[in-house]
Amino acid sequence: MSTAASPQGARAPFFRSRWVPAPDHVFEQVDAPLPAGFRAAGVACAIKPSGDLDLGLLVCDAPEVTSAARFTRSGTLAAPVLLCQERCRLDGLRAVAVNAGNANAATGRPGLDAAAHMQGAAAVIAGVPEDRVAVASTGVIGVPLPGEKVIAGLRAAGERLAPQGADDLAEAIKTTDAYPKRAALRVELSGGPVQLSAQAKGAGMISPAFATLLCFVQTDAGLEPATADLLLGVCVKRSFDRISVDGQLSTNDTVILQCSGRSGVKVAPESEDEVRFGEALDALLRQLALLIVADGEGASRIGRVVVYGGEPGSVEACARAVANSPLVKTALHGADPNWGRIVQAAGRALPDTSPLALDVSIEGVSVCRRTQAAEFDRAALAQAVRRPEVEYVIQLPGEGAETEVFFSDLSHEYVTINAEYTT
Amino acid sequence: MSTAASPQGARAPFFRSRWVPAPDHVFEQVDAPLPAGFRAAGVACAIKPSGDLDLGLLVCDAPEVTSAARFTRSGTLAAPVLLCQERCRLDGLRAVAVNAGNANAATGRPGLDAAAHMQGAAAVIAGVPEDRVAVASTGVIGVPLPGEKVIAGLRAAGERLAPQGADDLAEAIKTTDAYPKRAALRVELSGGPVQLSAQAKGAGMISPAFATLLCFVQTDAGLEPATADLLLGVCVKRSFDRISVDGQLSTNDTVILQCSGRSGVKVAPESEDEVRFGEALDALLRQLALLIVADGEGASRIGRVVVYGGEPGSVEACARAVANSPLVKTALHGADPNWGRIVQAAGRALPDTSPLALDVSIEGVSVCRRTQAAEFDRAALAQAVRRPEVEYVIQLPGEGAETEVFFSDLSHEYVTINAEYTT
Repeated sequence: MSTAASPQGARAPFFRSRWVPAPDHVFEQVDAPLPAGFRAAGVACAIKPSGDLDLGLLVCDAPEVTSAARFTRSGTLAAPVLLCQERCRLDGLRAVAVNAGNANAATGRPGLDAAAHMQGAAAVIAGVPEDRVAVASTGVIGVPLPGEKVIAGLRAAGERLAPQGADDLAEAIKTTDAYPKRAALRVELSGGPVQLSAQAKGAGMISPAFATLLCFVQTDAGLEPATADLLLGVCVKRSFDRISVDGQLSTNDTVILQCSGRSGVKVAPESEDEVRFGEALDALLRQLALLIVADGEGASRIGRVVVYGGEPGSVEACARAVANSPLVKTALHGADPNWGRIVQAAGRALPDTSPLALDVSIEGVSVCRRTQAAEFDRAALAQAVRRPEVEYVIQLPGEGAETEVFFSDLSHEYVTINAEYTT
Repeated sequence: MSTAASPQGARAPFFRSRWVPAPDHVFEQVDAPLPAGFRAAGVACAIKPSGDLDLGLLVCDAPEVTSAARFTRSGTLAAPVLLCQERCRLDGLRAVAVNAGNANAATGRPGLDAAAHMQGAAAVIAGVPEDRVAVASTGVIGVPLPGEKVIAGLRAAGERLAPQGADDLAEAIKTTDAYPKRAALRVELSGGPVQLSAQAKGAGMISPAFATLLCFVQTDAGLEPATADLLLGVCVKRSFDRISVDGQLSTNDTVILQCSGRSGVKVAPESEDEVRFGEALDALLRQLALLIVADGEGASRIGRVVVYGGEPGSVEACARAVANSPLVKTALHGADPNWGRIVQAAGRALPDTSPLALDVSIEGVSVCRRTQAAEFDRAALAQAVRRPEVEYVIQLPGEGAETEVFFSDLSHEYVTINAEYTT
């Protein structure tokens, strides 16, 4: 599977956003296999009408594997998410079976049965207990999962499992994604180098048509389950929890970290290496999150809104309101430094607080002070907002609280993608 | 000012939505003057670069006038809203001065001064006390209001005040509105007929570029201030509070009801006529609200989502999530009965409640039962969702709570309007 044409192609540095500097002890690996102990495969089993790869299998050969997982909080969870939460040893997952093209969501009891069959088949093929197999799906909502295709696909994938299978796995989980999202990193710890890799998909926080956020992370470092859970939790909060393409929560979001321990290097709790490994995982997930925003449906630009103020609830509400405002998103698309829309969104987020004194800057240029126009060089700012990344900083009254959200612009193509798709 | 070409043209019935049946005792008035006691005018004072009408003045000649008002709850209130709330006798407003093309929002202390000057000039011209004059503005945020133009415009408007001035007033408050929105009704009460008229604008709940919801209502019925406040409050909750074009709250929304009493017919508290007048006001504001949604930026279709369930908070959150979902709105635009997106939006609105049992019907066709696909005639439904009004009904678990939200679709034109406007 070639990725040469994609932005992640072998020669392009993975850490490309100014908002995600690569830590000094993290190095990109080109054409690297999966970390020691892992094999993967991606095959086509005809769930996607296009005939593209649509089924992936990921297996850890180390019985001593540890793992951690995070899922969407939607009130309408897809069957695979319900199954993982109810019937998996989430701290010791050996394998992941995943399909694209069908979300197995809003499929009722038959959907749960289909997810269980998928889990059972993958367990047999991987040679591990059922409760050590996570399942994940992404694609259209409300259509029964074609179980026989999935089982046939898992059999084919089982025969192709290989340490070089990450590319095919990343390809097999794509839906409306324009390109696969993956990385292979070397992380220098005090005990020696470890490998860290990930495959992700998503072209919206959710488009129930064809997209959903999935991310699978592997390492040959040795982490206790509690350490894996702690680090994944913190890093997901700083990455996938801070992005929005369309403000829509998926029924299927799933993030899984597996640690084989096969490098022989352990990441002990509260050690310097825990910090170093955490920094690497943080950078990895943040860059993947930004790739998902950049590949957001119809997106041409990424915005980052940073909000400072006195109350955690207020800065969060304000940042979300700005990131999800169609007026801010269309202004980002049109390269219009329209700070009035930022003021409006903040006012919406914080009702009954008028008069609210706001400072706003765009790309470092102060455009609004105490909710009133500031003098600035319009021509220079007009140029700055045409770049691929645009930063908005909002100061609310008070201090001590701070948050950020990354978001995509709203374009004609978003409307085309989502209005012209038909169930 | 001709309205012959608009959907509200003289020959078109005002009550045109199936969701707003005209009460039996309410009759549309064609080419009627304002209710007795009212005069209005609209002039051009060069705030709008187009040279179109952009300043309106509305005066009630009855000193015994009663009134009521409602405003946006934004945390970044525009200067005219702050002024009205702080310095007006809202239960006895004699006059309203309004401009379009500039919102006088995020304009600081100078903006408050400009609003005060506007109020003072209108008071002199109308010959009433300052605190009996409401001011309202709509247009671009963050640009100083050109006070001299406003004063000159008010002078010109003062010379043109006339009972026939409602058309010009409705025209002068337009921003991105494709057409003016107004109505003149006769309401049969037990004490005799009264007149009820209104002029409104809005092409989004808000676009801070050029739109905001304003609505001025006049009647020659006699209402005590408490009755006017009660009826306006209830009717706004059932109309302007239940619509969304883009989910954005304005800095400037203002609704004012004035009652001259000049018909000699009184609407007594807790009387049958209070009910009849309330029904008329309710129908008037609901139809105006639907006109605003229909004229929403880029809109081609109106959706109505009705949610039933056991908890008021849950039905409200679910209805808002559906109405503001860009995925639901693009599906409405594309005439796609995509119920999976409804399930996703409901799940987003009600996190951590999975598995949530939902029933969904579209245009009376059951498409999803207990969060699972139902059998239905796809061809018939595909036809039904191509009509100008599409209804979604969602049943959450439980009963006793119910709400509705009206919303527009999301189109390429919305993106064009909002991405190509430049501050």
